[in-house]
Amino acid sequence: MSSIWGRNIKISVFGESHGPAIGVTIDGILPGIKLDMDYINKQMERRRPGKNRMSTSRNESDSVNIISGLFEGRTTGTPLCAIIKNSDKKSGDYRRTKNIFRPGHADYTGYVRYRGFNDYRGGGHFSGRLTAPIVFAGTVCRHILNQYGIKISSHIKSIKNINDKSFLQEEIDCNRMDRLINSEFPVIDQSVESGMKEIIYKAREEGDSVGGKIECIVTGISAGIGDPMFESVESVISHIMFSIPAVKGIEFGEGFMMSEKYGSECNDAIYADENGEIKLLTNRNGGINGGITNGMPILFTVAVKPTPSISKVQKSVNIETMDNEEISIKGRHDPCIVQRAIPVVESAAAIAVLDMLLEAEKIKGGMNYV
Amino acid sequence: MSSIWGRNIKISVFGESHGPAIGVTIDGILPGIKLDMDYINKQMERRRPGKNRMSTSRNESDSVNIISGLFEGRTTGTPLCAIIKNSDKKSGDYRRTKNIFRPGHADYTGYVRYRGFNDYRGGGHFSGRLTAPIVFAGTVCRHILNQYGIKISSHIKSIKNINDKSFLQEEIDCNRMDRLINSEFPVIDQSVESGMKEIIYKAREEGDSVGGKIECIVTGISAGIGDPMFESVESVISHIMFSIPAVKGIEFGEGFMMSEKYGSECNDAIYADENGEIKLLTNRNGGINGGITNGMPILFTVAVKPTPSISKVQKSVNIETMDNEEISIKGRHDPCIVQRAIPVVESAAAIAVLDMLLEAEKIKGGMNYV
Amino acid sequence: MSSIWGRNIKISVFGESHGPAIGVTIDGILPGIKLDMDYINKQMERRRPGKNRMSTSRNESDSVNIISGLFEGRTTGTPLCAIIKNSDKKSGDYRRTKNIFRPGHADYTGYVRYRGFNDYRGGGHFSGRLTAPIVFAGTVCRHILNQYGIKISSHIKSIKNINDKSFLQEEIDCNRMDRLINSEFPVIDQSVESGMKEIIYKAREEGDSVGGKIECIVTGISAGIGDPMFESVESVISHIMFSIPAVKGIEFGEGFMMSEKYGSECNDAIYADENGEIKLLTNRNGGINGGITNGMPILFTVAVKPTPSISKVQKSVNIETMDNEEISIKGRHDPCIVQRAIPVVESAAAIAVLDMLLEAEKIKGGMNYV
Amino acid sequence: MSSIWGRNIKISVFGESHGPAIGVTIDGILPGIKLDMDYINKQMERRRPGKNRMSTSRNESDSVNIISGLFEGRTTGTPLCAIIKNSDKKSGDYRRTKNIFRPGHADYTGYVRYRGFNDYRGGGHFSGRLTAPIVFAGTVCRHILNQYGIKISSHIKSIKNINDKSFLQEEIDCNRMDRLINSEFPVIDQSVESGMKEIIYKAREEGDSVGGKIECIVTGISAGIGDPMFESVESVISHIMFSIPAVKGIEFGEGFMMSEKYGSECNDAIYADENGEIKLLTNRNGGINGGITNGMPILFTVAVKPTPSISKVQKSVNIETMDNEEISIKGRHDPCIVQRAIPVVESAAAIAVLDMLLEAEKIKGGMNYV
Repeated sequence: MSSIWGRNIKISVFGESHGPAIGVTIDGILPGIKLDMDYINKQMERRRPGKNRMSTSRNESDSVNIISGLFEGRTTGTPLCAIIKNSDKKSGDYRRTKNIFRPGHADYTGYVRYRGFNDYRGGGHFSGRLTAPIVFAGTVCRHILNQYGIKISSHIKSIKNINDKSFLQEEIDCNRMDRLINSEFPVIDQSVESGMKEIIYKAREEGDSVGGKIECIVTGISAGIGDPMFESVESVISHIMFSIPAVKGIEFGEGFMMSEKYGSECNDAIYADENGEIKLLTNRNGGINGGITNGMPILFTVAVKPTPSISKVQKSVNIETMDNEEISIKGRHDPCIVQRAIPVVESAAAIAVLDMLLEAEKIKGGMNYV
Repeated sequence: MSSIWGRNIKISVFGESHGPAIGVTIDGILPGIKLDMDYINKQMERRRPGKNRMSTSRNESDSVNIISGLFEGRTTGTPLCAIIKNSDKKSGDYRRTKNIFRPGHADYTGYVRYRGFNDYRGGGHFSGRLTAPIVFAGTVCRHILNQYGIKISSHIKSIKNINDKSFLQEEIDCNRMDRLINSEFPVIDQSVESGMKEIIYKAREEGDSVGGKIECIVTGISAGIGDPMFESVESVISHIMFSIPAVKGIEFGEGFMMSEKYGSECNDAIYADENGEIKLLTNRNGGINGGITNGMPILFTVAVKPTPSISKVQKSVNIETMDNEEISIKGRHDPCIVQRAIPVVESAAAIAVLDMLLEAEKIKGGMNYV
Repeated sequence: MSSIWGRNIKISVFGESHGPAIGVTIDGILPGIKLDMDYINKQMERRRPGKNRMSTSRNESDSVNIISGLFEGRTTGTPLCAIIKNSDKKSGDYRRTKNIFRPGHADYTGYVRYRGFNDYRGGGHFSGRLTAPIVFAGTVCRHILNQYGIKISSHIKSIKNINDKSFLQEEIDCNRMDRLINSEFPVIDQSVESGMKEIIYKAREEGDSVGGKIECIVTGISAGIGDPMFESVESVISHIMFSIPAVKGIEFGEGFMMSEKYGSECNDAIYADENGEIKLLTNRNGGINGGITNGMPILFTVAVKPTPSISKVQKSVNIETMDNEEISIKGRHDPCIVQRAIPVVESAAAIAVLDMLLEAEKIKGGMNYV
Repeated sequence: MSSIWGRNIKISVFGESHGPAIGVTIDGILPGIKLDMDYINKQMERRRPGKNRMSTSRNESDSVNIISGLFEGRTTGTPLCAIIKNSDKKSGDYRRTKNIFRPGHADYTGYVRYRGFNDYRGGGHFSGRLTAPIVFAGTVCRHILNQYGIKISSHIKSIKNINDKSFLQEEIDCNRMDRLINSEFPVIDQSVESGMKEIIYKAREEGDSVGGKIECIVTGISAGIGDPMFESVESVISHIMFSIPAVKGIEFGEGFMMSEKYGSECNDAIYADENGEIKLLTNRNGGINGGITNGMPILFTVAVKPTPSISKVQKSVNIETMDNEEISIKGRHDPCIVQRAIPVVESAAAIAVLDMLLEAEKIKGGMNYV
């Protein structure tokens, strides 16, 4: 049981890649929020397949139909449910490979977990398509966060061995963040873009796929959000990030690099600025100490593996005959999903951050301490 | 609110570094389990401070006092509560630095989160000392897992820039696992041990600290454990791992390395062996596809940052005067916590794995499908 | 946040009375269950409005559209989502009274809770219409329980001051249970039926409404289900029962009557029958001791208040003018909802019982205790 | 798994009647609360056994030892753990009856649930003794609620067939509430007290026990607390009330009486007072509509069955021999637990109300709706 996430807002995702529709219910959303459907559709568009040579040719409009929780354009505070139809299904593509587990996919594990009853078509509930409802839910959360002055942005940190700069090296200003948010292939150093795309096109030609890394930043978040131990900011964010198919690693701030350093190189010095406000000199810890935000931006990087759908010949097993067979996945697939995963990562981050903000709100009420 | 973790077993941790005691309540533990106190004490001993030059000289016996849930040597099935006294407290050490936030620690963030009311002595509830109850709870879980044939083992993958081999390169057999479990400084390639220790001793001399990486493996776990989306094996394990202070990154299988590869290099081929059992040829995905175990060992690596307690001079702020001051942390501290974090990582893994196993048990009941 | 219920199965309900649709997502349902749509539709039909003089004339077909979690007629194990369209909406009825809070309804409390942003039409998310998704979800659970040999049945224990017999007085056999389950106005003693209906018709003529009591029984459940303290069978069942609008009281077994008795009159004697099976002589405790089932049927009674929608003149306040005004509710309303609440009570009981059964399954796995 | 309760504060109870100690951890308590130990001890004293002829002669001081979450007299915001030692244990009393299930108790059900491994001495984890930690936790919550102006009070509504007046009949003023809170045998109409006590003494002499009803009121709570559907005020309060051993029924406002009335007799008229504040004329619905508070006091009544421990001869089964035997419970028992249950009911109500208040706080933050 695993389609529900959250403590203070709860999102409940449903649907399969080739069923009639997918969707999400968000419970605990604040009442009175005016939804900006243009903003939502823009985010949906960023994730949507079928736009260019870098993604699958499956063409879904991914238009969102809100069936509850919205009244006269504003959230009611009761569950907000949105449905997205599956229109461009070609289940025939999958019937061919039904009985042969695709390596790297959840075909075999889903088969065992659900005793053979799961909907295998296009990965069913395991499909990357299920990230569309996450983008919807996350965009609603993000819209609220924007009003708090909290912005979320990210860029392609690498595609295979081509690296962009890091937010750790570059100062982040609003203009740059907006440029990244509005880009379909966001990179800090625009000189690396063409190289990255070349690698993706080449993988596509070869019937292969490539992975990469996404670096995400949350700015405008105040100190004191998050919790020690089991609800640390790292725990909460990593939990939801690993819900995104193909994510296989996450690090906060300098992350793995810190394991190769001295403590004196990892601590962020603290100072009071001219206004007496406490600040940090650096952001090696990714905005988090002891599981709680320290006022610097939350900064993390996720590793995205290459999509396992490749047309190259692979070894596998036919579940009916139990014969060892070979499989070459045809269908319509993405040679690289990193750029499409960007709005998903940002949306998931928005859900996590709003949930943690609401947690912190509980002790901010107008209580007099005695 | 964050001291409680779990869906099918729940652990609830309490205590502060310099309060009278720390402890944990485990709810949902199976009844009738004969607790092996020697086994438990051995794990507690692995984490215990004060044993050698590589750790703090704070000397705690960490003896466990079980006050509920155990009857005639066996678990009752009702909450199992264990208390560990804090005996060797030197709070004076901390009073000196009370008003100066230690960089890299949770002093500042805890102060903001709890509005200045948190117990700051020794980090209070944020202290690494709070991992002792996790080791107790995890060892109880591990003891149960052992009976399922599930074993958890790990090694120091690196200390600063000195690297051990990886479980990905080496075949894991039972003897090796037992050797690692019984070692206080477990490495696969024993030739790297002295170099690692040298670096730690040197850091100690210089009043500095070093980090490293821990690679952990869970063997004997069958396919079909875990869930898609929000309760993926990666989500569940990463959530609890980031509850361990100083963990700043996690990756599963080849993790970040996969982001630099082709899909054809990342998929694990599937085959049926001579007995008709489905197996995987490689374990690049760390035993997990689509969030669910595939029958290969679960494999993950965590990055542990150097402990932020260093005697080198650092910049910080005095909260009373709001002056910028310098701080040099005296007290008794660990030059490296990687080796002491090993039983914590294994224990946290045991808790997570048992919880996921129980989740899967729900659909294994004796139901006839109609 | 309150639209999600359950530990081992989770149901997430969404929708408003006059929105486009209402629905429910069930997570954690076992895979491979062949859904019997006839059985489901029959239960939906029992609750459906518009059938006779005893209920509102709002006519909804309440046909269920399953959009996920079902594949080739069987549950997949991933979230099962069902949508029910709202077709016969007459929102105009409500516009008239929009600004005058209807006494006894949630108009005022919902207004305060959601700061005026809730959908007030027909009670919005508070509407009794939201029990339709509960009937769907509960019927799926009930279908599974039937396969365990667990049956749920209930009857109208009273309408206003007309009382039926109790399950405590009468032996329950399968035939009787089936008769009750198939009846739209189930009573044990059929001689009271006409009197009950007379009272309902009379209330209708007078523009008033009447309440009553429902007694529900769960047979075939084995001993050892449920938990001490916070997840007692009584806690779990009462929690979900009070989610049903108009339920204002619940008692288990002899309930309130026990408060007027001696202990010697309340204990159920225990004996071993000829097969050495442990049984209870009586069922005063409603099948539950210490929060756990004792092998006797679970037995409870809920008090259903008269629906607050009456055409009699009532005092209230106009929220726009803040004037005290009088209100007479026209629209289409039920003079009595007790008979329509029966399938809802049974469905909610089915959800609760299945959840508790799965909880108990966790410790029934094939573990060897050592 | 059932020893943990709450959404926004979580209490985790542990211990057995004859183990070394019982206790509770409260997570999510606000930081900076100055605990009033006199107030806490006074509430503990109200529940404490051994004080008079109406309760068991087991004499426990029930002194509370706080081992975490309190620093310099104030809550830290991290888990607050309190331990209460079991001192006056006479386990011998129970050894005699170990193998004979006591009717009306959880001996048989606990045996089945925990496969014979539960601690049976004195009921183990099922013992009424486990309500002591609830009184501690609830008193901490109550102390906070007092500062919001929220007061909780209750009285013995009946002992067997002797009835006190109801809060529905009598106006509640502060003086009366304080008198009730400070009384060990609180009744509104003091003329019924002696008759109630007579019945208790008589039951004691006859080796029997009697039950009764407790009516509880929560004043000072504003409108808009609680949620529709699964987290209705009734759901939340009933859930925790049925965690108290011996509670077998609950009703809100006029409760079961409403099932015998017309709708026009059950609705509470709404009006605006001279200050333009919205009020209700009556409180038939117990302060709750649609699961949400309406500004009137929350009012509910619980039915408490007679304690099952009686010395009268009862039929039961010997689990070792499987013979039908007779049992007469000696030990030290309460002829009536209603008066001792009063502080437990109030404490449980305090926990529930604080949890719901914090839930409502989430949407009261300083957000600007756009």
